Amino acid sequence: MSLLTCTIAAIPGADPVARAAARARLDQLTMPPWALGRLMDAAERLAAMTGNPRPPLARTAVAVFAGDHGVCAEGVSAFPAEVTPQMMFNFVGGGAGINAIARISGASVTAVDVGVAGDLAPIKGRYRDERVRPGTANLARGAAMTREEAVRAVEAGIRVANDLCLGADLLAAGDMGIGNTTPSSCITACLAGADAAAVTGRGTGIDDAAHARKREVVARALALHRPDPADGLDVLTKVGGLEIGAIAGFYLGCAAARKPVVVDGFIATAGALIAQALCPKVVDHLIAGHRSVEPGHRIALSKLGLDPLLDLGLRLGEGTGAAMAFPLVQAAGRLLTDVATFAEAAVAGKTA
Amino acid sequence: MSLLTCTIAAIPGADPVARAAARARLDQLTMPPWALGRLMDAAERLAAMTGNPRPPLARTAVAVFAGDHGVCAEGVSAFPAEVTPQMMFNFVGGGAGINAIARISGASVTAVDVGVAGDLAPIKGRYRDERVRPGTANLARGAAMTREEAVRAVEAGIRVANDLCLGADLLAAGDMGIGNTTPSSCITACLAGADAAAVTGRGTGIDDAAHARKREVVARALALHRPDPADGLDVLTKVGGLEIGAIAGFYLGCAAARKPVVVDGFIATAGALIAQALCPKVVDHLIAGHRSVEPGHRIALSKLGLDPLLDLGLRLGEGTGAAMAFPLVQAAGRLLTDVATFAEAAVAGKTA
Repeated sequence: MSLLTCTIAAIPGADPVARAAARARLDQLTMPPWALGRLMDAAERLAAMTGNPRPPLARTAVAVFAGDHGVCAEGVSAFPAEVTPQMMFNFVGGGAGINAIARISGASVTAVDVGVAGDLAPIKGRYRDERVRPGTANLARGAAMTREEAVRAVEAGIRVANDLCLGADLLAAGDMGIGNTTPSSCITACLAGADAAAVTGRGTGIDDAAHARKREVVARALALHRPDPADGLDVLTKVGGLEIGAIAGFYLGCAAARKPVVVDGFIATAGALIAQALCPKVVDHLIAGHRSVEPGHRIALSKLGLDPLLDLGLRLGEGTGAAMAFPLVQAAGRLLTDVATFAEAAVAGKTA
Repeated sequence: MSLLTCTIAAIPGADPVARAAARARLDQLTMPPWALGRLMDAAERLAAMTGNPRPPLARTAVAVFAGDHGVCAEGVSAFPAEVTPQMMFNFVGGGAGINAIARISGASVTAVDVGVAGDLAPIKGRYRDERVRPGTANLARGAAMTREEAVRAVEAGIRVANDLCLGADLLAAGDMGIGNTTPSSCITACLAGADAAAVTGRGTGIDDAAHARKREVVARALALHRPDPADGLDVLTKVGGLEIGAIAGFYLGCAAARKPVVVDGFIATAGALIAQALCPKVVDHLIAGHRSVEPGHRIALSKLGLDPLLDLGLRLGEGTGAAMAFPLVQAAGRLLTDVATFAEAAVAGKTA
């Protein structure tokens, strides 16, 4: 069996026994019933996804998957493609947004080249070469990649997850790739069954003319390829991105290892939709970190059935919104381990 | 001059120079313009409130102020009053919700008795005796406390802030006091100019009959006392709580020390309204941690003009929603210190 097939086969469903044990304890904590609301919901899910009513969550890790996009030739991005390789140096140098946010929980940041179009030869630090090809082809004119390349991108993400899961309890994937909201819009439209216009936003900040062009490109690509929503690899092949495929694989790998993984913004969520198409059970292992300002993100999260922890007007990617949620997930876990019950603390319960 | 008068006199306004310096740097960070949204807004405010474009935020502290409420005699709470002293033992024992949440940022938790009605004699640990009186009088039938007691409660909070600010960069106040949503509803109605019904929720979980009774009590108390919204001490005296007064003082003390302080839920926000009535500039130093499910909280936050970082369906108090936001505030600070500019990282800027 291939790594992808093995990994999908290994993904367990949510554990009802651990969930019930967590629920029973949460109901007895020294506080009014379910007084920590969605943090308690998260605690219950953490128990179910790990199969452990006291899940360990101390060690955190972020993988930032990078790839370039042939569709940039259509003028869909506000930034030049050379930014993708330049940002790889920024990640390993510790100066990017994700490096700053990761520090709040002591998370490691690993930059992974899945498809950068540019020379990274002198790069040093937490960097990993998993390059499948130097950027996708222009999805507005043909398939973004071959099906075999799509599998390789997903398996690159699985390998990174397998390695990071050895030293981390709570993980996140981030993205870097100039132009990558365009494939994310295509994926979301296809897999969530939404209109191209509804899922196509301004990305890093394009003007009205570029936004109109981008909407037209997304609609045209979907009409050209008619990707099969029942086949995640077909969607990835035709309208995807290499880093998006790797993010999908990362989620599959974390789920197979029973490690909770926090989903970031619009691009990462497009990766989650691909993962869901490949294995619906993966969603039981995902936590939505935040809701971004990209209009398609809400639609993609709704398709996953996930309610995000944060809503701070973010639109950066890199895993920033996911890493920002790490301390909240850890706090949810602490409700299961650190808070006394009414009986343990000899506190009187509700009377009215 | 009294401690209260001195403290109010010492509170500076927001620093426009530090704010501008922070803004200028945030505009050059290696990310699309203002791509971290409300986290960048918070970073700019942190610079303004501390007068430092690189504010230190590593050391965190929470003070939980506790008091009892004579208005419990009206049957407005789901829990018996004996829970207030019992929870003090839980706080110092490390088993309460706030202890768990505080650990995500390594915050100390100090339990402060400002007006518990019960013997805490054998208590040990991070506990402080600032008791003004053993619980308020029943505000439905007379003033909750004397004006002199109101000043003492506020000054207790100032003293705690002064001490904690010596060893902390980022602080929060929490509340414990069975029955304390009722005075908070009275304070919010008075100071935000809202209807009693609109600001009176179910607290720790009362049924319909108790909720109707509580609304009637709030309306009756406001009609009985007609507290003067221009006089924060009058409001506190007539319809307040001892811990609410101390929280107001805590905010004043932190603001005078130029230490950012995160506001918790409905009760803490009622304290912030009292502080605002005493010194409007204090609001420049407050960060709203979260929006709780209490209907009056949104109204109180709106009166302060603050937009909360989190919205997780919390209704616990104790400072939990504020301490949950500590890592986000620290992340905001790291944007000012840890992220490289386009020039520093040699990354190309926006083209379109």
